[in-house]
Amino acid sequence: MSYLGVGVSPGKHHVRESDLKALDRKVKIAELILRAAVCGLALIAALLVATDTQVKEIFTIRKRAKFTDMKSMVMLVVVNGIVAAYSLVHTFRCVVSMLRGSVLFNKPLAWLIFSGDQVMAYMIVVAIGASAQSAAYAKLGEPQVEWMKVCDMYAKFCNQVGEGIASSVFACASMIIVSAISAFSLFRLYDGNKAW
Amino acid sequence: MSYLGVGVSPGKHHVRESDLKALDRKVKIAELILRAAVCGLALIAALLVATDTQVKEIFTIRKRAKFTDMKSMVMLVVVNGIVAAYSLVHTFRCVVSMLRGSVLFNKPLAWLIFSGDQVMAYMIVVAIGASAQSAAYAKLGEPQVEWMKVCDMYAKFCNQVGEGIASSVFACASMIIVSAISAFSLFRLYDGNKAW
Repeated sequence: MSYLGVGVSPGKHHVRESDLKALDRKVKIAELILRAAVCGLALIAALLVATDTQVKEIFTIRKRAKFTDMKSMVMLVVVNGIVAAYSLVHTFRCVVSMLRGSVLFNKPLAWLIFSGDQVMAYMIVVAIGASAQSAAYAKLGEPQVEWMKVCDMYAKFCNQVGEGIASSVFACASMIIVSAISAFSLFRLYDGNKAW
Repeated sequence: MSYLGVGVSPGKHHVRESDLKALDRKVKIAELILRAAVCGLALIAALLVATDTQVKEIFTIRKRAKFTDMKSMVMLVVVNGIVAAYSLVHTFRCVVSMLRGSVLFNKPLAWLIFSGDQVMAYMIVVAIGASAQSAAYAKLGEPQVEWMKVCDMYAKFCNQVGEGIASSVFACASMIIVSAISAFSLFRLYDGNKAW
């Protein structure tokens, strides 16, 4: 990681201020880009799954597949929607903070952002776990318990759900990095060097 | 969180060294207890699921339910096993570091522990998401896609899996706190106060 290379070696704690300011700026830009990416990707994921539908005629019966047929898909849509809205708010916060040039001095606010990011990251991970598992059953079936494949019948529907999950995975990866950045922004306020 | 109360107010960065040493000791003890808890709980979860079995006779056919019938249960056992082994190693590391009184000065080591903890936390969350989803299908079925309930037939088996998932959830909660502690231990080495 690039943080390792800012010239801080164990035992030497006096880093030039300009180095840290440059690092700080890079971290802020990375955070802004990642938050915007999370917002876009989570929104795409939610829309892809929520708008997905396929009608199949079996003899004379019309059956329409939609995301509400599976609770895990509903959860995926809801969680991605929440993460997108949350990320939108924080993208604006990042922009405002960069324009104003203000700094995160405030420990309670840093704790709030850190906690929010952690909740979002774990929430999207658990939603992906559940929906990927459902998708695997739908695609492959689980013969031991006689759950049949349903993707053979609804191929187009399943593909679009797959795209939604993929988009959600990228949103999740970005969210995990964002949550590490907010951990960095919070815990660096606790001066570790003085404690040793 | 208790860190908010150590007497650091925004703008005042000179905290008494003794306060930080006391905080440091508390954090270390908390980390040790939590890592030991993760190890125990994850081990219990893995054993509960892996040893679970139930035989059912339907007319003259004997059918044995076991965790390998569902891929998500296999994943739950494997992930809990890995997390337990990882936590055991780190519990020993914590004990040794406390006995020696050595401190975490080393940024590469702190990065390694932080990264490992993050991987374990997200891995166990995704495993819980997938296996809880499978358990929900097994317990409730998914009528829209004609996946039938299997827990009606294998009630004892399902209950034990449920206990395993519950134990895994507690292991996961502790692992998430541990990963926050290792983020704290890492990022406090980056002196944020000097940067502003």
